[in-house]
Amino acid sequence: MQYGPGPLSFVPFVSVDQMMHLILDIGIERFLLDLAGYIEQDFRRWQQFDKTPRIAAHCADGVIELMPTSDGNSYGFKYVNGHPKNARSGRQTVTAFGVLADLNSGYPVLLSEMTILTAMRTAAMSALAARYLAPAGSRAMGMIGNGAQCEFQALAFKAILGIDTVRLYDIDPSVTRKAARNLERAGLKVVQCSSGEQAIEAVQVVTTCTADKQHATVLTDNMVGDGVHINAIGGDCPGKTEVHPDILHRSEIFVEYAPQTRIEGEIQQLDADHQVTELWEVIAGAAPGRSNARDITLFDSVGFAIEDFSALRYVNDQIRIHPFSSRLDLLADPDDPRDLFGMLNRAAAHYRASA
Amino acid sequence: MQYGPGPLSFVPFVSVDQMMHLILDIGIERFLLDLAGYIEQDFRRWQQFDKTPRIAAHCADGVIELMPTSDGNSYGFKYVNGHPKNARSGRQTVTAFGVLADLNSGYPVLLSEMTILTAMRTAAMSALAARYLAPAGSRAMGMIGNGAQCEFQALAFKAILGIDTVRLYDIDPSVTRKAARNLERAGLKVVQCSSGEQAIEAVQVVTTCTADKQHATVLTDNMVGDGVHINAIGGDCPGKTEVHPDILHRSEIFVEYAPQTRIEGEIQQLDADHQVTELWEVIAGAAPGRSNARDITLFDSVGFAIEDFSALRYVNDQIRIHPFSSRLDLLADPDDPRDLFGMLNRAAAHYRASA
Repeated sequence: MQYGPGPLSFVPFVSVDQMMHLILDIGIERFLLDLAGYIEQDFRRWQQFDKTPRIAAHCADGVIELMPTSDGNSYGFKYVNGHPKNARSGRQTVTAFGVLADLNSGYPVLLSEMTILTAMRTAAMSALAARYLAPAGSRAMGMIGNGAQCEFQALAFKAILGIDTVRLYDIDPSVTRKAARNLERAGLKVVQCSSGEQAIEAVQVVTTCTADKQHATVLTDNMVGDGVHINAIGGDCPGKTEVHPDILHRSEIFVEYAPQTRIEGEIQQLDADHQVTELWEVIAGAAPGRSNARDITLFDSVGFAIEDFSALRYVNDQIRIHPFSSRLDLLADPDDPRDLFGMLNRAAAHYRASA
Repeated sequence: MQYGPGPLSFVPFVSVDQMMHLILDIGIERFLLDLAGYIEQDFRRWQQFDKTPRIAAHCADGVIELMPTSDGNSYGFKYVNGHPKNARSGRQTVTAFGVLADLNSGYPVLLSEMTILTAMRTAAMSALAARYLAPAGSRAMGMIGNGAQCEFQALAFKAILGIDTVRLYDIDPSVTRKAARNLERAGLKVVQCSSGEQAIEAVQVVTTCTADKQHATVLTDNMVGDGVHINAIGGDCPGKTEVHPDILHRSEIFVEYAPQTRIEGEIQQLDADHQVTELWEVIAGAAPGRSNARDITLFDSVGFAIEDFSALRYVNDQIRIHPFSSRLDLLADPDDPRDLFGMLNRAAAHYRASA
């Protein structure tokens, strides 16, 4: 009689520590670049995916969301919270974990931390979008909001778009100093600025990534000239935006999944039928991206389940090469699948014998 | 500089092996009885809960579902698959795991296997419903379908309703023998039967729990006399039913959550406005249960998220007493919550130092 986990019991697990080691072993910029490649592949086959708006549970101070998707063969979902006041108790505003599964058997094939992985995929997504939308030869990026996402964005734009200068501004100067310190040896020219205006002087890309859960205008119309790409990632839930509507009206707007972005993104400030382009169409060659050097393009990013699916898919491939995962005894694997109770009986016999 | 998981990184984890030990340490019947108490508590406060139909991803051979709910303070969800053909490859038809979280911080507080736990909560739910619906003094139960759920049902009805005799029938006699063997020392009189008719002779409770994903009539009208309670648990997804509609028309029907049961339960065979009672109303004293000894009551059970929430809540309380959990490094916990990237930098320094 077999006792103990069987061969089908185990699900590979990537902890926070293992994820950090995986990223560092691969190299942060290489990881971002490869991950952008996985996202690009999945955006090219966008129409194969089941798409649902995320399923949210709200409380006064935040939200917990489930973000599932499937390409018909694999299934993935992410659990993610957003609690802006968490920092007060030393917690993360956003934490996440996710699961990749075989849709044909229903068995999970990977459970992974996704707090760090989400930071990586958000940055990879932003830079990938910019590769299709930013002015040719973009070299400088201004960043308003220098919190947890800032350095990931900087490195992704360096690796994927070829940015060599970042100009940083945050309402809290100590946060800007933190980001500058973290980017010291990243091979980027880092300029600490004392205003949003100064941060976006002579840049080709403007990234807004502030975290307040409220309508805040960190980018006003008179700040933004022609011929820039705006990467708006902080406005990502109902009631939370960063960009003045006048800028939106001057911009060509690109989104991930329009039904979700109209609820959560900057465009919640616009009419429900305002013209936007889904980015996958640009990536698949079905719609134009930037048509003119003087255009303002704006990527109104809120994060979509397919990006997490791509990230889980990438990590699942990488842990076959890099030894940074363990195994969780998550699935019951009785000798006879119809005999779940018998497994419990055998455990009882073993338990008595070893007591 | 701190390196490595911090105090907020860890999420308690209950593996399959730990769940079995937890159940055996508490005692199977005690666990079922206590779990029924937790479900009963949560059904009494039914109106506090967010209720959503489960979110499903289908393929040709099965389905993966997410089942979230929240009482405004705690949040829970279950991942569960249903793949009837899995047995052919030695896999479980149904596997599951779940998470309990603090809605106010968004942080998970428990990750647990739920393949075994779902079997326990389904049985506890059935027997709890029967305590409100079955004829007074019920002693014998007939069971059609003797697969993975059978023994759990038998023990739950013994512990919670006071059943002393089970009569077993399965289309595959070896499955009946398996169930009878597993129940040998359970303190129940077990009768192996060679037909469904024989299995439900002179019983007060009829349980149907077959697993085929198709309309199958395991209970026909002429088989069922008055004054019984039918516990119908196998019909639990669109296109899968077990009970002939004529029986449904003779029965007082009780369900968990009507919008979900009308899609997934036996009552998918009835008109969309057929009168049913939600069980929580009976438990909360807002609706009558069985009104007459000669009635046929039918619990059309499909499984609802609140039952899983109750089960996670119970396990979360029990692992504080019984030492059967471990800790997963699932959540990033940087010294400064805005400095996620700094945590990666510190890991890099540590990684280089130990390389």
